[in-house]
Amino acid sequence: MEKGTLLYEGKAKQLFETNDPEVVWVEYLNQATALNGAKKDMITGKGELNNQITSLIFDFLSRSGINNHFIQQISATEQLIRSVNIIPLEVVVRNKAAGSFSKRLAIEEGTPLAFPIVDFYFKNDQLDDPMITEDHMKVLNIATEKEIQLLRQMALEVNDVLKRLFKEINIDLIDFKLEFGKTPDGAILLADEISPDTCRLWDLKTKDHLDKDIYRRDLGDIIPVYQEVLDRLNKREGD
Amino acid sequence: MEKGTLLYEGKAKQLFETNDPEVVWVEYLNQATALNGAKKDMITGKGELNNQITSLIFDFLSRSGINNHFIQQISATEQLIRSVNIIPLEVVVRNKAAGSFSKRLAIEEGTPLAFPIVDFYFKNDQLDDPMITEDHMKVLNIATEKEIQLLRQMALEVNDVLKRLFKEINIDLIDFKLEFGKTPDGAILLADEISPDTCRLWDLKTKDHLDKDIYRRDLGDIIPVYQEVLDRLNKREGD
Repeated sequence: MEKGTLLYEGKAKQLFETNDPEVVWVEYLNQATALNGAKKDMITGKGELNNQITSLIFDFLSRSGINNHFIQQISATEQLIRSVNIIPLEVVVRNKAAGSFSKRLAIEEGTPLAFPIVDFYFKNDQLDDPMITEDHMKVLNIATEKEIQLLRQMALEVNDVLKRLFKEINIDLIDFKLEFGKTPDGAILLADEISPDTCRLWDLKTKDHLDKDIYRRDLGDIIPVYQEVLDRLNKREGD
Repeated sequence: MEKGTLLYEGKAKQLFETNDPEVVWVEYLNQATALNGAKKDMITGKGELNNQITSLIFDFLSRSGINNHFIQQISATEQLIRSVNIIPLEVVVRNKAAGSFSKRLAIEEGTPLAFPIVDFYFKNDQLDDPMITEDHMKVLNIATEKEIQLLRQMALEVNDVLKRLFKEINIDLIDFKLEFGKTPDGAILLADEISPDTCRLWDLKTKDHLDKDIYRRDLGDIIPVYQEVLDRLNKREGD
């Protein structure tokens, strides 16, 4: 597999063509951003940790029957994925109230929700990723009724699998963000990354943040925390 | 029917007890507010116009088979309604993009939507009436799945009736806000008011605003405009 020209540069990843049109080469970067890019830093080691964590998690999801874009990790900071057209949605699953949801509805962080909530946000930096409803997605032609129901179902399946995975390593999965992509034949695959950048992970006993809120809220250095998540995942694999 | 003690004072209406526990006496006020109360004015004649317009419209909705709280108009500024517990939701139906929806999703005002959208907002001044999803309503115990579907269906029925009514008087119904209440036996009734304060009404030919956007956007005096809406409704009734 050969690395080709840059296809897309995101906030935390670069995507490159390969000699196979169905395969994309991803490089995880050390850049951290928050507040829709208003806060930005280079943090040595972050790209490596997120690439490894995402690879481990997507591999686990594949083994759990979740259709996704992941092919294989190829270096500390690189992985190969299937080429998909990203659906411009952030699909957020919430098990406990936190972050913008807590603020928006004045529900204390950590309050358990009666059932896992699925929220959809329109991926659009200029509009500041607004929350949107199923009606909005349909009227904007972002997704059909059938696709929305599939996204919702897949997101809840991922939640079931990840809640169990993280519980085994004494982590409470508070909420997380997913992205999905479409293959040329119209199949919907889980895409993007799943890492402490995209999940809220609380230590089950201490309630300590093991995620990007450390960076967003200036609570300290993310590297030892992300390393702790990777170590626990690796230790579990080794068991 | 005797007017009793004040039950509730809203931004544009006062509600009083009557000697019948199932009946509430409403007085429409001249106060106009916008931006969640940040902009506030007394506008002589506004209460009278909204009471008359709301009475005409609710009477028409009753004749069209929409279950609602309206009993009868009793003076220029007063009406009697059935006592209900208001569900803390603003149910907005949109036929064309306008206002917050236009801004939120960068869709030009006046753009027709492929189908009427129903948006739900949590009626909570402290939280600035945030938009909420069906999941949120269920998890906050604001409404059950069955109630949400009924609210949606009733809102779309009201839209069908009002779109036709306004079209007959050369008005394009862009969007509007409804509130619903529950009777002691659990029935859901359309409640609150329907007036140029709660609808976006554009003249079908000139596209002129015939609604509260005149006040929100400092476009002039609302009284002649609200009077125009009332005159057209009265003329139609007389036909």
